[in-house]
Formats: sequence, structure tokens, C-alpha cells
Amino acid sequence: MEIVFLGTGAGMPAKQRNVTSIALKILSKGAIWLFDCGEGTQHQLLHTSLKPRKIEKIFITHLHGDHIFGLPGLLGSRSFLGGEEPLTVYGPPGIRSFIETSLSVSSTRLKYDLSVVEIGEGTVYEDDQFIVEAKRLDHAVLTFGYRIVEKDQPGTLLVDKLMALGIQPGPIYKRIKSEPTVRLDDGRVLDCSEFIGPPKKGRIVAILGDTRPCENGVALAKDADLVIHEATFEKKAESLAAEYFHSTTRQAAEIAKKANAKALCLTHISSRYELKDNPLLEREAKEIFPNSTVAKDFKKILIPVKKDRH
Amino acid sequence: MEIVFLGTGAGMPAKQRNVTSIALKILSKGAIWLFDCGEGTQHQLLHTSLKPRKIEKIFITHLHGDHIFGLPGLLGSRSFLGGEEPLTVYGPPGIRSFIETSLSVSSTRLKYDLSVVEIGEGTVYEDDQFIVEAKRLDHAVLTFGYRIVEKDQPGTLLVDKLMALGIQPGPIYKRIKSEPTVRLDDGRVLDCSEFIGPPKKGRIVAILGDTRPCENGVALAKDADLVIHEATFEKKAESLAAEYFHSTTRQAAEIAKKANAKALCLTHISSRYELKDNPLLEREAKEIFPNSTVAKDFKKILIPVKKDRH
Repeated sequence: MEIVFLGTGAGMPAKQRNVTSIALKILSKGAIWLFDCGEGTQHQLLHTSLKPRKIEKIFITHLHGDHIFGLPGLLGSRSFLGGEEPLTVYGPPGIRSFIETSLSVSSTRLKYDLSVVEIGEGTVYEDDQFIVEAKRLDHAVLTFGYRIVEKDQPGTLLVDKLMALGIQPGPIYKRIKSEPTVRLDDGRVLDCSEFIGPPKKGRIVAILGDTRPCENGVALAKDADLVIHEATFEKKAESLAAEYFHSTTRQAAEIAKKANAKALCLTHISSRYELKDNPLLEREAKEIFPNSTVAKDFKKILIPVKKDRH
Repeated sequence: MEIVFLGTGAGMPAKQRNVTSIALKILSKGAIWLFDCGEGTQHQLLHTSLKPRKIEKIFITHLHGDHIFGLPGLLGSRSFLGGEEPLTVYGPPGIRSFIETSLSVSSTRLKYDLSVVEIGEGTVYEDDQFIVEAKRLDHAVLTFGYRIVEKDQPGTLLVDKLMALGIQPGPIYKRIKSEPTVRLDDGRVLDCSEFIGPPKKGRIVAILGDTRPCENGVALAKDADLVIHEATFEKKAESLAAEYFHSTTRQAAEIAKKANAKALCLTHISSRYELKDNPLLEREAKEIFPNSTVAKDFKKILIPVKKDRH
């Protein structure tokens, strides 16, 4: 899994930062999930190797313009650029009306099936590989944070142990992986669980929308490998942050710390800060949570596959 | 008056050209009128000296996404950046629903009065300085072209002629400019029209939306100082242009020629052409209409005040 920040600014586009969009690349299946889609997201994609047709899901945290005004254009361009696979957009109630009105007024015809799911708290998506859970945050409008949990994967076959018993590779290995017990030709019966390593722990990424620091933020970020939290302001602007329903660097770091997360990346940075202020903002977060970084447009973060727990 | 091209591409944003938006600067009053507002128009403005709060009118040619998806963001940012003067958006029926839904879903609150006028053919705006007229073009959806006519301005006072008669500068000059006749202190009566130069001819700019070549295009461009016409394709792609309701370089040039226009600028160039193809496209137009240019993003065209007709 890899994160690519497509826009890391707050409220309005600026020369140095576009408005919010975050791509989660699911490398195992070459798919992209997008979180928010501010105006100009499709323009930002032009400067990456990410293809709109690879986007299979778009999760919207809230309906403020800097998080959704890039949707209609991206949906249309995805079709124009050959996207034919279905796409699902998840977001707070109202997202359907915005999408339907925009596409209908502009006579945009999509060559793929578009589903729009208006969500509440709870599990918003699940397949055999992932569960995505949403919880409400504390913002001026209904806003969700998303917790993306990769399911644990079965451990690998302990080949050395099998070979030591004289069991050679062949179709029998596949049966040992999938059946509880296996009877060999020589009559021996294997308890297959003894020949499978521990399950591979799935990764957890929390991508939060605009918010004041809140307990649901901690719950979503619990034990996450990566938390992406907004930090619109520096630590000394705490009252301003509270007034506008946003967080400071320090508050975001406190959430990551309370959640026992492994890494924190700050985004949604106010345009009052320039890129050269990133080290200051990062320092403020590190005081509380050492493994903190500050995003800039096109920053990538790889979340490596976990090693077996031996 | 000055034109600034903010986006000169067709259909989708590309690295070299953003989607359509054209700014008309009315230098005499420091105002900006925008024609179309594709996604990313507010981003393009960041790279110019044009301030969103100076935009007082936005004329939309048609509702395709590459001409309107930048509207909600720009309307919101104009407010955020201190725009408090009223703004009017003119466009085909449907524009109101798009704007109202976008602003309402996103909880965008404007600090200025926004009026939306759904237009048909005819005069869409008039003040003491300008008349803006719209006519239908030939496109896949209802599309208008706009003809912006600056009204003729009264001529200047012929000071030399007055001085020769011994009439010195003073309050009397103001009366000579505004009254049909004036009685001097010495009893003489002046026919004021004899002391005013010929009226200054107003300028005419035609800004057409997406279209096949059509007679209304000629009518809108009649005797214009500048015609801005789409040329999505090169001349040899005439059947493709017809199929997609667009024009070629040659067809646009023929419109300008038939209209007896003074200058032509081509825009809405397909992404199949790179900027290095501009000379080729320009050459094709010049074969028919010598005073042709091809737009690129941020190109400016000054339309100078006309000299008195002596």
C-alpha cells in the first residue's frame, strides 16, 4: 500500500498546495482508492503515474467545496480516458445530489457504472481483503474519518518442516494449506495447522477529514500503521483552530500518541504557512509524537507488508 | 479592454492547456468579465494579476463540464478573498440548478449578492457603456456566443476652435459639452455640436462558445475588432469536427472573413495538438484570414481605444 498526496492545502487552492485529495494505492491489485477530491484533483493526477481508470473507489470525508468540487470533472475524465470498470463514491448525505446534478446539467455520460453510497457511521465497505469503517468527527458540517483495515492473511507454508519429514513439494502442499488435516499415502495424518506459519498481520491506515481533536479520531487511529490527520494550524493557534473546527500540529500528534499509532502524517495545512514552514510544523508534532511528518503535494508514503510474527 | 486566456484546451485539462475560461478586462473601470469557467480557473488566476473580487460578471456559453466545473470553487473563493461587490452569472437554463446545488450541498456562504440569470437569445446585459448580445450556436447542447459592444462615446471638446474664438477654459466648457446651445456673456450663441469632435467608436468583441461554423457566428462577429472562435481541430479533420459539433482552423477563419472582423484568435484546441503545433494551426487560419493567432494559456490581447474618426 502506498499513499500519494494529491492536495495538502486547506480551504482554497494556492500555488504551493492544491486542495485536499489523497490517493491510496493498493499495490496488490493495482487499484486506487481516493479520499476526497478537491477542485483540480484531475489536474494533479496529470503529474503522477496514477491513471483515473484505476480509481475504483472514492471516499469523501465531508461536503465542503475544497473536498468535493473536483469530483464531477474527474468522473467525466475517467470515462473519457477509457475507464470502463465500475466506480463507487462513498460520502455523507448530499453527495448524491451534487454528483447527479453536476453530471446531468453538464450532459456528462459515463461509460462505466457509477454507484453513490450515502454513508453513516460503521462499516462502509468490506471485501475479502479490506474493511473500511467510518466514524463521525468534530467539524462544522457532518464529517467522517475512515479506518482502512487490511484483513490478516494466512501464514506461509513451513516448507523446511515438511521437507524434514520427507514430504516433497507437489499437489499435497496445496491441500495442506487449505485443509485442516491431510492423510498421506504412507498413512500418516498431518495436523495442517502445524505446518502453516503465523498469519500475516494486515495493515491499518486512518485517513481523517477536517476535525477538532476528538475521541473518534483516536478510535479510528487505534494501533494504525499510518494516521493521516489534518493540522490546519501551528500549535500556538489553538483557539483559532477550535473556532474553525480544525486541529493544530500538537493536537494531531496527541491523537496519534493516544491511539498508539506507528506513524503520523499531517496535511490540510493553512495557506498562511509556506512549504518552508514544514520543518517548524513537523518539529511541533515530533515534540509529542516523534514519528511525524508533514505532507506536501505529491509526497508518497509506502506502508510495507508486515513481516510474519514469529 | 484586454483579453486574458485562462484556459485554451478542449474537453479535459492537459499539462499544456487548462479547460476553457477567458477574462475580459474592462480597463476603464478595473472590472473583469469572465467567459466560461472550467475546472481550475481559480488556480489559473493565481498565476495572473487578476483578482477574483474584481470579477463582476461571468457569462457561460454552455453547460458542458469543461466550461462550468470551476464555477462553484471560484464563487466561494471570491467571497473568502474579500469579494463583497455583487456578481452576476449569465448562462443557459440549468446553470442556476448547478450553482445552487453546489453551493448548498457544500454549505458555501457568500458574503456578496450572487444573481444568476438564465438567458435566451437577445440582449442579455446593457449599461451606459456596453451591450452584450447572445445568439445560439450549433453545438451538441444549447450553446451561446456573446457579442460585447462598447457604446460609442461622445467626441472630445475642440479646444483650439474655442480658443480661436476667444472662449477661454472654464465652467463654460462643461456646458458646451452637455448642452445643445450656449449663450455667452457677450451675447453670442454657440451651436455646441460645432465644437465637439466626432464620437469615439466603441469596440466590439465576439466570444463564441463551442460550435460548428454557423451563420449566427458570422452575425455575432460582424465588424468585430476581435473574434474569439473555437478551433478544436486542424483543417483536415473537418469531418471529425462536424461529428463532434466543433470547428476547424479554416472554418473559424472563414467565419471571421465573412464577418469582416479585424482580428481572430483561435482557442479550445484539442489535446491532440501540442503547443508546438500552434504555428501550423495559425498558418491554416492565416490562409483564409491573415490577422489570425492561436491562443495559449495566459496569452493577452489588448484591444486599444479607437482613434476619433476625423
